[in-house]
Amino acid sequence: MTDVIVVGAGLAGLSAARSVQASGRSVVVVEARDRVGGRTEAGRLEDGQWIELGGQWIGPTQDRMYELVGELGLTPIPTYNDGDIVFGLCGRTGRLAGKKGAIPRLNPFAIADLAQGTLRFARLARRIDLERPWESPDAELLDGQTFRTWVRRNLRTPQGRAYFELYCEAVFSAGLSDVSLLHALFYTHSGTDMDTLMAVDRGAQQDRIDGGSLLISERMAADLDVRLSSPVRTVSQMSSGVRVTTRDGTSYDAARAIITLPPTLAGRLEYDPVLPSWRDQLTQKLPAGSVFKVYAVYPTPFWREDGLNGQAGSDVGPVKVTFDNTPPGYERGILMGFIEAGDGRHWARRTPEERRAAVVESFVRYFGPRAAEPLEYVERDWMAEEFSRGCYGAHLAPGVWTSYGAALREPVGRLHWAGAECSPVWNGYMEGAVRSGEATAAEVLRLL
Amino acid sequence: MTDVIVVGAGLAGLSAARSVQASGRSVVVVEARDRVGGRTEAGRLEDGQWIELGGQWIGPTQDRMYELVGELGLTPIPTYNDGDIVFGLCGRTGRLAGKKGAIPRLNPFAIADLAQGTLRFARLARRIDLERPWESPDAELLDGQTFRTWVRRNLRTPQGRAYFELYCEAVFSAGLSDVSLLHALFYTHSGTDMDTLMAVDRGAQQDRIDGGSLLISERMAADLDVRLSSPVRTVSQMSSGVRVTTRDGTSYDAARAIITLPPTLAGRLEYDPVLPSWRDQLTQKLPAGSVFKVYAVYPTPFWREDGLNGQAGSDVGPVKVTFDNTPPGYERGILMGFIEAGDGRHWARRTPEERRAAVVESFVRYFGPRAAEPLEYVERDWMAEEFSRGCYGAHLAPGVWTSYGAALREPVGRLHWAGAECSPVWNGYMEGAVRSGEATAAEVLRLL
Repeated sequence: MTDVIVVGAGLAGLSAARSVQASGRSVVVVEARDRVGGRTEAGRLEDGQWIELGGQWIGPTQDRMYELVGELGLTPIPTYNDGDIVFGLCGRTGRLAGKKGAIPRLNPFAIADLAQGTLRFARLARRIDLERPWESPDAELLDGQTFRTWVRRNLRTPQGRAYFELYCEAVFSAGLSDVSLLHALFYTHSGTDMDTLMAVDRGAQQDRIDGGSLLISERMAADLDVRLSSPVRTVSQMSSGVRVTTRDGTSYDAARAIITLPPTLAGRLEYDPVLPSWRDQLTQKLPAGSVFKVYAVYPTPFWREDGLNGQAGSDVGPVKVTFDNTPPGYERGILMGFIEAGDGRHWARRTPEERRAAVVESFVRYFGPRAAEPLEYVERDWMAEEFSRGCYGAHLAPGVWTSYGAALREPVGRLHWAGAECSPVWNGYMEGAVRSGEATAAEVLRLL
Repeated sequence: MTDVIVVGAGLAGLSAARSVQASGRSVVVVEARDRVGGRTEAGRLEDGQWIELGGQWIGPTQDRMYELVGELGLTPIPTYNDGDIVFGLCGRTGRLAGKKGAIPRLNPFAIADLAQGTLRFARLARRIDLERPWESPDAELLDGQTFRTWVRRNLRTPQGRAYFELYCEAVFSAGLSDVSLLHALFYTHSGTDMDTLMAVDRGAQQDRIDGGSLLISERMAADLDVRLSSPVRTVSQMSSGVRVTTRDGTSYDAARAIITLPPTLAGRLEYDPVLPSWRDQLTQKLPAGSVFKVYAVYPTPFWREDGLNGQAGSDVGPVKVTFDNTPPGYERGILMGFIEAGDGRHWARRTPEERRAAVVESFVRYFGPRAAEPLEYVERDWMAEEFSRGCYGAHLAPGVWTSYGAALREPVGRLHWAGAECSPVWNGYMEGAVRSGEATAAEVLRLL
């Protein structure tokens, strides 16, 4: 019998457990996978070089992450950002200075349209109540429409609309039709603003962790009692506490439980008594995004010779967003990209060989014929992962925030919820996961 | 080892099993509940009178249901429909002839608005491809917006908008924000048209089954091997067949399986190998509606004396839709109503006593002070049901049909899918469930 059982050893679960343990209470973490880290994951190239198959970035205002990285003896390293971005919208491709706030080189109408559209969006986003988005001004109106409806009404040029679509896919790995306008505004405000979410320089992609982001979870887990390969199946509440049982029949008893699974997966556990309807129906309405993370490795980061920073943004897939993921000191060149939303779903039905060819074709389009022959190709299909079933995180369709938002963090008896999806600030990011884990741990500690 | 295992003993599962058995193949049905019928359920009043706690109606063009009812030796009885409907929108309440196509008595602007709005909606609905809604003309555009967005743009009067909102809640037990326009159009076309879906006379509520709708399932089950109280937990596919295992560890081996659970619940089973991402993510995106079915019983059906048929339609809840559910020959009067969508969620958080008081208040508003003192009150909260987790059925948010529609009926190896949600015709109704069960059984029989 421990004080707290934490379900899930991702960043939320581990940071929650760390808080509980720091307060002198006992805690056990049960994790379905044979590793910690959740949606962060380590990979290795054939030559042993570390790469990251999942979440990897931190950036300014993610204060808790920088603190935590420091506490754990880790070092932030800058994302490579010297040179121009390759930017392509509506059949025109150009170069763009890789600095925050840089505006795509488009025709004057498109620039004016994009300027008014982003300003209008920013004004709306700032009005969203991050703690209670459903109580924001005009919440019903904003939550009653898709992001696509708003973009069609408020952007007049194909380029302006394409830019917002790219933004939506890049942050949600979901399409403009899938996301409520209220959710798009909330999420943008939660992560500061559009510019910050999209940028490397002073943005959400500014820094990485030397050695890979999984080190954060591994170092947190080092001092904790973490039971790996222990997928939870049932969660029972009794008057005296909680019993969590894994698929192999092992049971853990605790006074309270913190469940940190993505909501759609938390809804799949068997609860006794069954969850109240407001919680269960919430979990039916928080689907995960659709995304592959892909890597191609080259003898050198040749794009740098052309004055390019390895970043691309485009409305033509399958890879619409790329980054130079070459760590400092590594002699080869690593291009990383995402296959998101509809592209992710489409390419999930193809063979790895077909995907590799399509990814390489995207890279050639952005960085020229030298991208045609990678030494190595690596991919991670997050949709296929049994214990994630999608990434980056959950998105909310119209009507969900206003009907179910209050249920997102509300405890059910002795069951408490945490995870990147639960955070008012930097929702969906590593920062949000850690903040949520710590906030929920504090709530539980008050009740123990 | 049987030829086919069917998961779920609702109308889809039982009709599938019946088809399999009729062809001479062996079949076992496993059912989580201690009864058959799924979202149809029998109840009893204190004096023993039968009532229905779940689905209850059949109507013209539901040919398969009328045939089946005949085959099973059951008798359709008409829903009580003599007299006027009480209709209230935007603060005005009036009476309306209880005949199909009757237009609410509203001001001339509202009537004109409603006429143009329903005509426009009907024209769009007729263009939807029922087999492949995602291939309908302008599918992306229609699926990129909520039903609410369309209503706001196409209805100009508060009454016109309120009528569409009432329609949406009555057929989906979900709000205008929750439903994709494409889904609203598909579902309407699937059930003929708005008028048919709303009407008793020549509509979806025309007839009932003497003795209660559960008799259909019970009579089908009588000749089948149905294992009750057997909630399925795991579904394994091997090269030679399928193994389905229940929570108590009992296993069933079969050549193929037909899974008839609502998609959101089907997604909660443990599959080995795990479901492909296109199927898993579909199940994350088909939430169930929110609804209570409520009954109040009176010494007599007193509303009939006032020339009322017991039906009400109103934009003020908690009960916005009512029916006279008194069976022929029963001396007492039975009013039945629904608490739907946002009302359902709101009232799920209250006590049964509070709900009873609010329901009675609604009934008094529609039928006068004699409704104030029911002899008996009965309710069924379908959101709280572990093995439904909502009713009437699943609704599709924007983007879902166009991104995941093709996955709805596509088999995964030896696993086949059926249920009211899978039917092109009368989707969401008992007719759709039976058609889907039989169609999937035919598909499986071809492959055995």
